[in-house]
Amino acid sequence: MALVVHKYGGTSMGSVERIQNVARRVAKWVNAGHQVVVVPSAMSGETNRLLGLAKEINANCADMSPREMDMIASTGEQVSVGLLAIALQAIGTPAVSYTGWQVPVRTNSAFMKARIESIDGVKVKKDLDAGRVVIITGFQGVDPNNNITTLGRGGSDTSAVAVAAAIKADECLIYTDVDGVYTTDPRVVGNARRMDKITFEEMLEMASLGSKVLQIRSVEFAGKYQVKTRVLSSLTDPDMDINIEANSGTLITFEEDENMEKAVISGIAFSRDEAKITLNQVPDMPGVAFNILGPIAAANIDVDMIIQNQSKNGTTDFSFTVNRAEYNKTMELINSTVAPAVGAASVDGNDKVAKVSAVGIGMRSHVGVASKMFDTLSHAGINIQMISTSEIKISVIIEDKFMELAVRELHQAFDLENEVSTDAV
Amino acid sequence: MALVVHKYGGTSMGSVERIQNVARRVAKWVNAGHQVVVVPSAMSGETNRLLGLAKEINANCADMSPREMDMIASTGEQVSVGLLAIALQAIGTPAVSYTGWQVPVRTNSAFMKARIESIDGVKVKKDLDAGRVVIITGFQGVDPNNNITTLGRGGSDTSAVAVAAAIKADECLIYTDVDGVYTTDPRVVGNARRMDKITFEEMLEMASLGSKVLQIRSVEFAGKYQVKTRVLSSLTDPDMDINIEANSGTLITFEEDENMEKAVISGIAFSRDEAKITLNQVPDMPGVAFNILGPIAAANIDVDMIIQNQSKNGTTDFSFTVNRAEYNKTMELINSTVAPAVGAASVDGNDKVAKVSAVGIGMRSHVGVASKMFDTLSHAGINIQMISTSEIKISVIIEDKFMELAVRELHQAFDLENEVSTDAV
Repeated sequence: MALVVHKYGGTSMGSVERIQNVARRVAKWVNAGHQVVVVPSAMSGETNRLLGLAKEINANCADMSPREMDMIASTGEQVSVGLLAIALQAIGTPAVSYTGWQVPVRTNSAFMKARIESIDGVKVKKDLDAGRVVIITGFQGVDPNNNITTLGRGGSDTSAVAVAAAIKADECLIYTDVDGVYTTDPRVVGNARRMDKITFEEMLEMASLGSKVLQIRSVEFAGKYQVKTRVLSSLTDPDMDINIEANSGTLITFEEDENMEKAVISGIAFSRDEAKITLNQVPDMPGVAFNILGPIAAANIDVDMIIQNQSKNGTTDFSFTVNRAEYNKTMELINSTVAPAVGAASVDGNDKVAKVSAVGIGMRSHVGVASKMFDTLSHAGINIQMISTSEIKISVIIEDKFMELAVRELHQAFDLENEVSTDAV
Repeated sequence: MALVVHKYGGTSMGSVERIQNVARRVAKWVNAGHQVVVVPSAMSGETNRLLGLAKEINANCADMSPREMDMIASTGEQVSVGLLAIALQAIGTPAVSYTGWQVPVRTNSAFMKARIESIDGVKVKKDLDAGRVVIITGFQGVDPNNNITTLGRGGSDTSAVAVAAAIKADECLIYTDVDGVYTTDPRVVGNARRMDKITFEEMLEMASLGSKVLQIRSVEFAGKYQVKTRVLSSLTDPDMDINIEANSGTLITFEEDENMEKAVISGIAFSRDEAKITLNQVPDMPGVAFNILGPIAAANIDVDMIIQNQSKNGTTDFSFTVNRAEYNKTMELINSTVAPAVGAASVDGNDKVAKVSAVGIGMRSHVGVASKMFDTLSHAGINIQMISTSEIKISVIIEDKFMELAVRELHQAFDLENEVSTDAV
């Protein structure tokens, strides 16, 4: 008998029939003797509908009280948990639903992007021991002043993993519309392979690089509290054998087993929505990085890659990337105030770039990955505009029209379509 | 400067434009220097939509967990309060919204028909003193175990009056789609007159008799806590002079002023959805009433009028009325078990009857009302099937096809189209 958390996304909860399917799946686990906590999202489209009403009232979203937005948005999950409880009860499985504040799921007061601070598992455990399925709203919590908060888009993944940590669940199963984590996007590389396992560090890099399977904060939580987390498909027959289910999808692990040691690269991640900006010949002095990025952070623009090369003749070129949607706003800010303030000779910008990354825990002990990556891209005639590396990741910025080509070439070069890459590098 | 509670029904909150109208009206009061608490209902149709989803999952409503129904249904008002807060903020009026549990509005645990036990006004007062409009979800509260409860249909009226009592508001304004309480339904009697004032006892009788303006429990609350409550229209121009508004509609009062003494009858109420059942020649012995009505109460059937005449030859005829929708169920129960058990000679039933009542605080000191009522009906050729009286009300059961005629004749006989009835009786 295991204690598991199931998380279901908005698509899995998208209609009465689908909610009934979720209930059948959960009941199957319960009938096999397991204790189950379920964390469902709002029915698909519901959160957008609710926030759409608010936007109709006040078209200027920036002015809108985030506290009130959370008051409204949090109702989507509250409806979901109630409906799922009724669906379970209708098939004879005792169930009880709780909102974030009832558990409680305590968060800070950052409305619309709150962070979970603690979860009280006492009430949940008591219900489980009494034979009930416990259904907890994803995406939301309560702040120290009893205000309802939401965790931001995708927050239900984080809720599920955090609940699993709080009740010390044996495993957190994230049911989604894909059947696991792939070596890269199967729509780009036809023979991309589903991984049975991935380390949480690799998953972190994959998630942050635009692989949309899991929300990145949920992976951080899984890592911090060592929650065994599995990504698997909810689109399979809910009556299938749960022993098979418990071994399907992709498991995020915390041990680097023998297999993993051998795999130099686990996957190729990519992101098209990139833009890069370079300030040329900035007089190099202490504080220049802060003087450039401070105003950008103050304008709530997220910066991704940051590159500063060695200075030459007392000046340096400073580059960074932002999300493409924020390119114009950023360029305006740089041109109007930042570049003059730091004395840059000129500013270059390009919003037609993409980022491609090779991710792998095995990279730590293999030196040749970078050169192999650069060689592969060079042979494909793809020019590298920026490079950035971490311990288990190498990212390059390239012209965006070459993105798919780069992903396919790298996937093949690192032999990712086969079970374990033993490619000598 | 006054402290007032505004209550808006689902129709008034039925669209983004209407919510913006409500906001303009509230802002007008605030800008005139008043402190305002608003209790809105869910957007019209929303509660039905939510409960409809639950019914799709479990067609057998009787089996459905009322706790989970409340979890789902309560979200409708939560969305309303958030949207109204945003609408107020958008026009520069500071506002904050609270759910029932946040105030808190404490209730018992009778899910779907909970009763308010206490309301903590401290947080509300603090916000008001800080210059904010406080918006509180109607229809809901929280039980001693932190479960969300709802008060049942129409519960928002009760919420508003209870909040007004808790914060000692100067007046509770119930904005609705009619402009006050009439001497009878204007659709039946063209020259029915809107009353400027009505005593709470009269309102109680009018409400319980099918005058749908106010939920009956809200009137009980108003009486118990002496909350000055006004029913008025939300369909007027929200920019109108609030001094006019504050004197419009119908005020429910607690003093019988001079005017009222003179008015013998205030209004004619009626209800078409009636059915009557008579057990003939029941052997008269102690406990017979309980033996008849006990099983009916146990089956959750509400009984309205109950009439038992003096016994003759050791037997009595026992009659009562139920809602027409429960007629078949009741007849089945009576015929199968109750009538044999009490030894009734036969059972008569009729589901084509209506109830017409004359209501008036002045009736207390005027003896001739009943005879005038019976005389009027007799002259109109209407046969009276049952009679029941209370201190301020006389009700008769008649054939339902005569209902409108009876209402019109009585309205005229008691001279209700004129401001004060001084008709000698």
